[in-house]
Amino acid sequence: MPHAPTSPTVDAEQFYEELWAHVQPESSRRLLISALDCFALKGFEGASTREIAERAGMSPGGLYVHYRSKSDLLFQISRIGHQRNWEEIEAVVAAADRPTDKLVAFVDSFVIWHARFHTLARVCQYELQSLDGEQLATITEIRRRFQRELEAILDSGVQAGEFNVVDRHGIARAILSLGIDVARWFTGLGALRAEDVADLYVHLTLRMVGRAEA
Amino acid sequence: MPHAPTSPTVDAEQFYEELWAHVQPESSRRLLISALDCFALKGFEGASTREIAERAGMSPGGLYVHYRSKSDLLFQISRIGHQRNWEEIEAVVAAADRPTDKLVAFVDSFVIWHARFHTLARVCQYELQSLDGEQLATITEIRRRFQRELEAILDSGVQAGEFNVVDRHGIARAILSLGIDVARWFTGLGALRAEDVADLYVHLTLRMVGRAEA
Repeated sequence: MPHAPTSPTVDAEQFYEELWAHVQPESSRRLLISALDCFALKGFEGASTREIAERAGMSPGGLYVHYRSKSDLLFQISRIGHQRNWEEIEAVVAAADRPTDKLVAFVDSFVIWHARFHTLARVCQYELQSLDGEQLATITEIRRRFQRELEAILDSGVQAGEFNVVDRHGIARAILSLGIDVARWFTGLGALRAEDVADLYVHLTLRMVGRAEA
Repeated sequence: MPHAPTSPTVDAEQFYEELWAHVQPESSRRLLISALDCFALKGFEGASTREIAERAGMSPGGLYVHYRSKSDLLFQISRIGHQRNWEEIEAVVAAADRPTDKLVAFVDSFVIWHARFHTLARVCQYELQSLDGEQLATITEIRRRFQRELEAILDSGVQAGEFNVVDRHGIARAILSLGIDVARWFTGLGALRAEDVADLYVHLTLRMVGRAEA
C-alpha cells in the first residue's frame, strides 16, 4: 500500500485544529492546547497550572473556571486523543474486506497517527500514571479496544488461512508497541514522512504474521 | 533460543546493585539511585533536588557536594545505563558466529535489558530532552552504536544469504524501537517474564528479516 504523495504537514495542522474544535468555549480549548504543550515540554508533574494558564493568555484562577485540576486537563487531552485515534482505526478497519486488508488498514492508520500527532501521542502514552483511578479506568477501556480489535483480525486471518501466528496476544501487543514508539522517535523534521514509516511497518507486520510474499 | 527457567527477579536485583557498585563514595551512589527513583516517579522536571537528597537521607546542600546539578545526576544515570547495556550487547554479539546468531543474541539481550531494568530504561529513553547539549552528544554517540551494530549485522546477513531485507536502516530502527518500548509497558508484576518477551521478539525479528523458517 504505497502512499500517494501528500503534504502531511498541512494535513496534520488542519487536522490538529479540527481535533480540538469541538472543545467549547474557546477559552476552554485554548487551555487544553496550552496544557498539551506544557505537558509535552515538562511532563505532567513538571508543568504548573500557572504556566498553563499564562500560555493560554489567562490568569491562574481562570483555569479553574473551566477545569477542576491539572489532572482534569490531562484526562481530557488523553480521552480526546485516544478516542479520535480509535474512531479512525474503527472506520478504516470496517471499510476493509479480507483480514489482510484490515490488518494493513489498522497498522497504516495507527502508525500515521503516532507520527503526525507525536506530541499529543507522547502525552497520551507517557503520562498515564498521572491520571487518577477513575480517569485511568476510562482511558484503559479505550486502549483495550485496540488490542481486542487487532487480536480479532489476527484470529480471522488465521481462520482464513491468511496468517500464521504463534501467539496472537503477544503479536498484537508487539504491533501496537511498534506503532506507539513512533511517537518517541519521529520528529517530522527530516525527509522521512509519516507515510514512509507506515509503509515499512505494514511490510514488517505482514512478515510478522507470516505472509510469506510480504 | 528458548530460555532455561531462571529467577529473573533475583537476578535483576543482584544485577541492579552491581550496576551502581562502582559509583563511589557510597553517598554519591545513594544520591544516584534516589534520583533514578524520583525521575521515574515524577519525571526529570517534576523531581526536585530537595526530594532527591531527602530520599537519600541527606540534606539538600549535601547533594551539591557530589553533583553539580539535577541534570548532572540524570546524565550519570543515563551514561551508566546506556554504557552497560551497550557492553552487554557488544559481548553477546561478539560471542555469536553467523549473522543470524548475532541478530538473535542482540535482540535477546536488548529486550531482556529493557524488561528487567524497565525503570532505568524509561529514564534513559524518555528524559533525553532534559540533558544539555554536551551531555546529549555523549549519550547520542553511545546510542548510535546500537543502530550501527544492528545495520552491520543486517548487512552481513544479506551478504551471507541469511536475510532478505528491503530497508536495513528502517528495519534496524524498528527492531530497536520494539525493544525500547518494552520499558514502557513491561511491569514484571504478572506471569510474563522478560525471557518470554525476548523469545517472542527474537521470533518476530527473524520473520522481519525474512528468515522463512522462523
